[in-house]
Amino acid sequence: MRRTIPFAEVAQHNCAGDCWVVIHGRVYDLTEFLGVHPGGSEIILKYAGGDASAAFAGVHPPDIVAMLADNAFLGEVSGGDGRASLEPDSQENKKSVGSDFRVRKGDSTGEEVPATGPSIKKMLRLADFEEAAISRMPREALGYITSGANDEITLRENRVAWNRLWLRPRVLVDVTSVDASSRILGFKSSMPVYISATAVNGLAHPGGEVLVTRAAHAAGVIHMLPTLSSRTLEEMTAARHPDQVQFYQLYVSSDRQRAADMVRCAEVAGCKALFITVDVPVPGRRETDMRCKGVAATLAGTTVASSATFYDPKLSWADIAWFRSITTMPIVLKGIQAGEDAVQALHLGVDGIVVSNHGGRQLDGTRSTVQVLAEVMEALRSLPGRSKMEVFVDGGIRRGTDIFKALALGAKAVGIGRPVLYGLGAFGQDGVEQVLHLLGEELRTCMALMGTPTLADIKPNLIVSDHRRCYCADEDAYQQSKL
Amino acid sequence: MRRTIPFAEVAQHNCAGDCWVVIHGRVYDLTEFLGVHPGGSEIILKYAGGDASAAFAGVHPPDIVAMLADNAFLGEVSGGDGRASLEPDSQENKKSVGSDFRVRKGDSTGEEVPATGPSIKKMLRLADFEEAAISRMPREALGYITSGANDEITLRENRVAWNRLWLRPRVLVDVTSVDASSRILGFKSSMPVYISATAVNGLAHPGGEVLVTRAAHAAGVIHMLPTLSSRTLEEMTAARHPDQVQFYQLYVSSDRQRAADMVRCAEVAGCKALFITVDVPVPGRRETDMRCKGVAATLAGTTVASSATFYDPKLSWADIAWFRSITTMPIVLKGIQAGEDAVQALHLGVDGIVVSNHGGRQLDGTRSTVQVLAEVMEALRSLPGRSKMEVFVDGGIRRGTDIFKALALGAKAVGIGRPVLYGLGAFGQDGVEQVLHLLGEELRTCMALMGTPTLADIKPNLIVSDHRRCYCADEDAYQQSKL
Amino acid sequence: MRRTIPFAEVAQHNCAGDCWVVIHGRVYDLTEFLGVHPGGSEIILKYAGGDASAAFAGVHPPDIVAMLADNAFLGEVSGGDGRASLEPDSQENKKSVGSDFRVRKGDSTGEEVPATGPSIKKMLRLADFEEAAISRMPREALGYITSGANDEITLRENRVAWNRLWLRPRVLVDVTSVDASSRILGFKSSMPVYISATAVNGLAHPGGEVLVTRAAHAAGVIHMLPTLSSRTLEEMTAARHPDQVQFYQLYVSSDRQRAADMVRCAEVAGCKALFITVDVPVPGRRETDMRCKGVAATLAGTTVASSATFYDPKLSWADIAWFRSITTMPIVLKGIQAGEDAVQALHLGVDGIVVSNHGGRQLDGTRSTVQVLAEVMEALRSLPGRSKMEVFVDGGIRRGTDIFKALALGAKAVGIGRPVLYGLGAFGQDGVEQVLHLLGEELRTCMALMGTPTLADIKPNLIVSDHRRCYCADEDAYQQSKL
Amino acid sequence: MRRTIPFAEVAQHNCAGDCWVVIHGRVYDLTEFLGVHPGGSEIILKYAGGDASAAFAGVHPPDIVAMLADNAFLGEVSGGDGRASLEPDSQENKKSVGSDFRVRKGDSTGEEVPATGPSIKKMLRLADFEEAAISRMPREALGYITSGANDEITLRENRVAWNRLWLRPRVLVDVTSVDASSRILGFKSSMPVYISATAVNGLAHPGGEVLVTRAAHAAGVIHMLPTLSSRTLEEMTAARHPDQVQFYQLYVSSDRQRAADMVRCAEVAGCKALFITVDVPVPGRRETDMRCKGVAATLAGTTVASSATFYDPKLSWADIAWFRSITTMPIVLKGIQAGEDAVQALHLGVDGIVVSNHGGRQLDGTRSTVQVLAEVMEALRSLPGRSKMEVFVDGGIRRGTDIFKALALGAKAVGIGRPVLYGLGAFGQDGVEQVLHLLGEELRTCMALMGTPTLADIKPNLIVSDHRRCYCADEDAYQQSKL
Repeated sequence: MRRTIPFAEVAQHNCAGDCWVVIHGRVYDLTEFLGVHPGGSEIILKYAGGDASAAFAGVHPPDIVAMLADNAFLGEVSGGDGRASLEPDSQENKKSVGSDFRVRKGDSTGEEVPATGPSIKKMLRLADFEEAAISRMPREALGYITSGANDEITLRENRVAWNRLWLRPRVLVDVTSVDASSRILGFKSSMPVYISATAVNGLAHPGGEVLVTRAAHAAGVIHMLPTLSSRTLEEMTAARHPDQVQFYQLYVSSDRQRAADMVRCAEVAGCKALFITVDVPVPGRRETDMRCKGVAATLAGTTVASSATFYDPKLSWADIAWFRSITTMPIVLKGIQAGEDAVQALHLGVDGIVVSNHGGRQLDGTRSTVQVLAEVMEALRSLPGRSKMEVFVDGGIRRGTDIFKALALGAKAVGIGRPVLYGLGAFGQDGVEQVLHLLGEELRTCMALMGTPTLADIKPNLIVSDHRRCYCADEDAYQQSKL
Repeated sequence: MRRTIPFAEVAQHNCAGDCWVVIHGRVYDLTEFLGVHPGGSEIILKYAGGDASAAFAGVHPPDIVAMLADNAFLGEVSGGDGRASLEPDSQENKKSVGSDFRVRKGDSTGEEVPATGPSIKKMLRLADFEEAAISRMPREALGYITSGANDEITLRENRVAWNRLWLRPRVLVDVTSVDASSRILGFKSSMPVYISATAVNGLAHPGGEVLVTRAAHAAGVIHMLPTLSSRTLEEMTAARHPDQVQFYQLYVSSDRQRAADMVRCAEVAGCKALFITVDVPVPGRRETDMRCKGVAATLAGTTVASSATFYDPKLSWADIAWFRSITTMPIVLKGIQAGEDAVQALHLGVDGIVVSNHGGRQLDGTRSTVQVLAEVMEALRSLPGRSKMEVFVDGGIRRGTDIFKALALGAKAVGIGRPVLYGLGAFGQDGVEQVLHLLGEELRTCMALMGTPTLADIKPNLIVSDHRRCYCADEDAYQQSKL
Repeated sequence: MRRTIPFAEVAQHNCAGDCWVVIHGRVYDLTEFLGVHPGGSEIILKYAGGDASAAFAGVHPPDIVAMLADNAFLGEVSGGDGRASLEPDSQENKKSVGSDFRVRKGDSTGEEVPATGPSIKKMLRLADFEEAAISRMPREALGYITSGANDEITLRENRVAWNRLWLRPRVLVDVTSVDASSRILGFKSSMPVYISATAVNGLAHPGGEVLVTRAAHAAGVIHMLPTLSSRTLEEMTAARHPDQVQFYQLYVSSDRQRAADMVRCAEVAGCKALFITVDVPVPGRRETDMRCKGVAATLAGTTVASSATFYDPKLSWADIAWFRSITTMPIVLKGIQAGEDAVQALHLGVDGIVVSNHGGRQLDGTRSTVQVLAEVMEALRSLPGRSKMEVFVDGGIRRGTDIFKALALGAKAVGIGRPVLYGLGAFGQDGVEQVLHLLGEELRTCMALMGTPTLADIKPNLIVSDHRRCYCADEDAYQQSKL
Repeated sequence: MRRTIPFAEVAQHNCAGDCWVVIHGRVYDLTEFLGVHPGGSEIILKYAGGDASAAFAGVHPPDIVAMLADNAFLGEVSGGDGRASLEPDSQENKKSVGSDFRVRKGDSTGEEVPATGPSIKKMLRLADFEEAAISRMPREALGYITSGANDEITLRENRVAWNRLWLRPRVLVDVTSVDASSRILGFKSSMPVYISATAVNGLAHPGGEVLVTRAAHAAGVIHMLPTLSSRTLEEMTAARHPDQVQFYQLYVSSDRQRAADMVRCAEVAGCKALFITVDVPVPGRRETDMRCKGVAATLAGTTVASSATFYDPKLSWADIAWFRSITTMPIVLKGIQAGEDAVQALHLGVDGIVVSNHGGRQLDGTRSTVQVLAEVMEALRSLPGRSKMEVFVDGGIRRGTDIFKALALGAKAVGIGRPVLYGLGAFGQDGVEQVLHLLGEELRTCMALMGTPTLADIKPNLIVSDHRRCYCADEDAYQQSKL
């Protein structure tokens, strides 16, 4: 039976063996939940006997408490510890947020807290947003967003590998009219770019995924909504413009009924495609984040066993047919890293795959996605039905020329992750829009200078890989000199 | 009807909607021109209602005002804001300029402002001039000259790629007499080097292109005059010695009549070849320069659309025949980056091509020009009529050995750009002459040490590319060891 | 005849021509031994006429004095210089040692000397232990442990070469149950990892090899006991748990009877396999250690000639049969660096080989062990009887992914050396256990993310070498573009 | 007519148009010689009207004044400027020089000037000597010795290229007796190493080449005497031990009679082989040295034309027969950099060649000598008479393993240059001996650890080049995975 519980009573249940916490005015007994919390028990115990609303709101949608056992909810709290809970809703519903959201987090007198770091006018390239985010975002959020697995070899490789492909521009082509507009799974996009799902955008900005969706609409690109969102699915889809398209990213729960419910909810809420993450049977180990005691330490830095309720290590190729049976959305597998798996995906008739290594956050030592993309396209090249499956790629894309290279290799579109969070964290919705604007400008300039006014003009022979930096002329001469 | 306009009246037209400026004593209404200025409106608006002569003179030839609409010229100004306009003419007409031109920009007492930086005697290699320029030139000018597109990958690659070719000297050859003299499009040159066109040399030194032409004559090399000059075509050609050869570089305007006029003027003024720039359908994005609020931000950092009057995105292979019809000058296409385009140029019968990526200023991520040169020579190798088209290369050449390598790959001559500007900016005409002197000395020393007393002795088998750094002897041994 | 010798008398024999020292209360005349001491005479002469117990105990097992000539032992000492000899035994016999053993070396008041450096809780990866050891271990011990031969090229190459192999994860495989348990020479191990023999662990911690063996048991892995141990063979084997397996590493003495005795003793003491070190016919030159006047300077930095009593330069393939005749233990050759030698080992019927370059401590300029491993597996691939010889590898393994790569290439298990010493030196037995725990966690996470729930699933095609970072798709396109 | 000239009179001839100098008490009129001095006029003009003895002695043998025109010698000087001339002879004739020769250059009170820098006992590798030389030698001498041509790319490449060859040790070989003794052109050497000719050793130490020859004898290696010596040929050969072998290096003068005289003198003085330098038709440009106003600036930094009297740009293959006609010494060509030239040398029947790029001091951008050596051995491999021509190599050899690699590629011996000068400059004769001692120790250790007790055991398959760092096992797997 639920009742009103004085805060003083809550305060007495403050240890691992007896752990109550207050979330948004409601009291929960999390003693049993401690052992299965995907983020580990430690983070919860910090709030044992206290109010965890603020910490909770930063990384969870409000409705996630539904996953608690029924008897965990004890009742409403009375009194409290005086800490105001975060109310992101009241803050994000005006677009004026813009330049620095932390102004709004200043004290109640309304005096402006001066924003630090460079202004949005100085953002000339995506890398600038990362730098701006360093001075404008909290250290913990940055640690979570920037970190990769272990030694971050793959994280770095993702980025630098794009530079190992070189461009071969063609001149004297009429490029008066450059058109980068594209179709992704049949849906119109202003360019071959979509916003990839990233977890808990609320870390970057209280408006979280809602602001990202609004920016996506402004830029004419598609937003892939994350399972691990800070805002509820309802909030995210409600923020959608009537003309706008959203996709849905799914972490498959080991509770398949729950997984089916999530898919159904996304489809009902109007999401147009289902991106199933296939590269997290267990979470990766992000030591950089763990070191700054950040989010990954709790969200993902758990051991193989304890996360089994949230990610499903049993997920296998055999499940694809089941997904097909529960939704009419196109199905895309996100996290392919080998040509063989791309071929298998094609055989099973999925609508698309994303060549991705989860932004270098899962298994360190895997190859750059651009390299895998080349392998995948080669593996698929001459297979029947090849054209029915679209291939996407994400990881390290920071320049319009990177997009061009991906398309030349055969990708249909590319996903953008961290830069969106840097834009969001540093400048709110305006930042996300500017990130997308710069990418579009750079891509169109690249297309003009490459002599390819339309996406259809982008062919593999316009790029050449690093090890082709040979000197053909002297090659023969060298051979001749040996005769 | 034109009239004398008091400066006070000018000062009232000082905004985007009503913008007058004074240039060299004449008042112009630039309100309409704001939208089509290749350099963008912002730079003009800084002088709205004021005297823009100094800023104008730094980057434009005086006669460029002819491109304004007739009704833009309102009349002569009376009074003024007291700022003296730059009078470059009176300053460059004595060669004594030499050591430091900024001395002459000191106050009117005639006291010498001490020159900073190293003296010209310390200039032992071209790289020294860049260093000297850093301490002797204004930051904005340096930003414009040194910058490349985006991340400047191609800018750096241009330079380092020369070092990936290695020399294979031959010994015991009589090199008593080393002769580097050459012919470029049939015109005599003291060495296989020409000065490539670079924009607004006035940024480096008030004497600008006039001093460069004089230095070119002293060194016996050909000067390619730029469209985007600080001095008028008349001034540049008037500075030519009777025995001297000048070429003309053309940015093709979308106004083809204007383009035809420019070609005709150049030919009439005695230019001996037409170098048509084909790699600027739209300007590149030079963020380094944009960051120091430099010239590129205004000259070239504009969007694709707004520059359409100055550069022509429609320019295509079909236009080559038209150019042939309006001039008898040899035609050279500047900015080839793929073997296929070199072949196309040969098919269309042009007289030469320049393998160039615009000094890494257009599209970042394109290959080094030395690499493209090898591809181009390979593509052309066995085509009929091959010998009628000369192949040039520019980009990153800083050493006599670089010139040797270009020739060994098959280039007829190389173009030099930035080093000339560094020499000009740091030491005036003397600096340019010393840059050319060092290159000649280095080339002749290289020829002697390579065992190639004449240019005809330079063969492809005297160089070898980096990936040939193998160890042949152990190669077979390794194979044997596996048996 | 032995007698009791006053310390004052000892003190008079204090030079190279007449050198007595006290070790653990007994007086030895080392005058003749000076010339054959593997560690050189200099270190002994520092204690000539004095008590060398402390210095001796750090690097020798007590029973090694048995190798002295009979007449070297003169008698018991009376009196002394007041320096307490180290009593490692009394210190290591409680596992509570843990966090910082130097606490126990504080003065007798029992006050705690604060431990410096990070706590064991901060150890998230093996590299952290090396850093911790730097602040927690004496400089000389570190110099000996960390150093490699000459310029330490091979030392570094060992480490970085693992990163030149890339992982190709497969997705949608059921990895609910990940099992890394393995068999090494038929003996069960919790993972395909063993602790390789390293010299004089007493340098890192007084408990030395005894603590390492206990940690090995806790982690379920096999410990290879070193010839050059700080603790006696009896102590090391006595510390073994009934269920535990130990191997024995042998430096072959040029006195073959002594070598035979050592093998027999090891077998009798219960060691289950004999690892014969074959890469030390003469000691390597470790200049880094010599520079900090460390252990290698004396132990190994001797000239070729003087070490001949300890290592045997005559050891050859012909001796293998003799070893087979004196023991029933499986025989493994440790230190193979060429495919040809692996083939030879197979022909001679040894039970295993260790691809090893002695941790980069012997000959600088040899290849990484991962590269040699690939060569060895290739050389053995199709030979008859191949499956009867197990191949191990050590050198630079610091990550679970490194273990995975070794197994994918064909190794049966990997050896860990320095990280164990860092763990031991920084945190005692707890440190070694944590090192092994982290490796196991990382390996299992890697297996899950690679889609390989059992070791049998790990196949060569799951890895790809660095030079395969090609872009297949554009390769053909490039060829086509040339047509 | 010669006379005694008061110093005051000399002092009046002190300009370029009238230039007298005093050398070792004799007055010379160098006015005409200014224009042909190989080192340029500037250095002489510093002493115009004064005493140049000290400066002269540092870089010239006394008898070089014989090359002046007869009328240049005016007479003996009387009086003087009080500057004592250097008397190297009196200083080098005792071997005790050793630790720091500048002690002996202290003031006459005999008080010791403390030597700076590390002691010779700390010299554990050749690189240590370079470091020691930095603190123990004058800046100008260092600048001359350390510098390479232009950007010093080849200088660095020489060194690092050795590290791109890797060693494949073989184990279980009896290496009880390691023998590195060798024959060079038939003459016995304690190891396959000789001291290569380097110019003006007096810069490093007043004892110059005389001390080097003595150290060579102590170490049992051959010394190649330089044309550009600080000491006379007579002094150098007089310092030779009866059992010792010396070679002679020749710069071929454009005055062939003079060249013939030099060869004859060398042969008469007992030199056993003639090494003709073929890579200096003109001097290289060493900017590092020029910048510190060092010796190269004057010795070698001259223009092509002015050095023609000293080096001969006419020297060609046709001259080889003439050299054969004037001497019975074996003839070796020093400075071969291409396989074709090695083949040509073989055809002409020379007795040996040195693969060398003059220590990276001539033409920057040429390949490492190890790479050229591989090419040369490959080119010569199957030619008739191959075995009659010995192949040597120098450049960047600093380790015993480098020597081993050279021998494995097929070299008969290696030359050592700069390290000898560093040893000489820092520690006199002792330093040179220690340099040679370390090389020998390292080579023998390498031979033992490689399983090659004699030089004849060193085969090509014991080394493997960098680009062979492949992973054979996964190669096939990768291919299979594509099927």
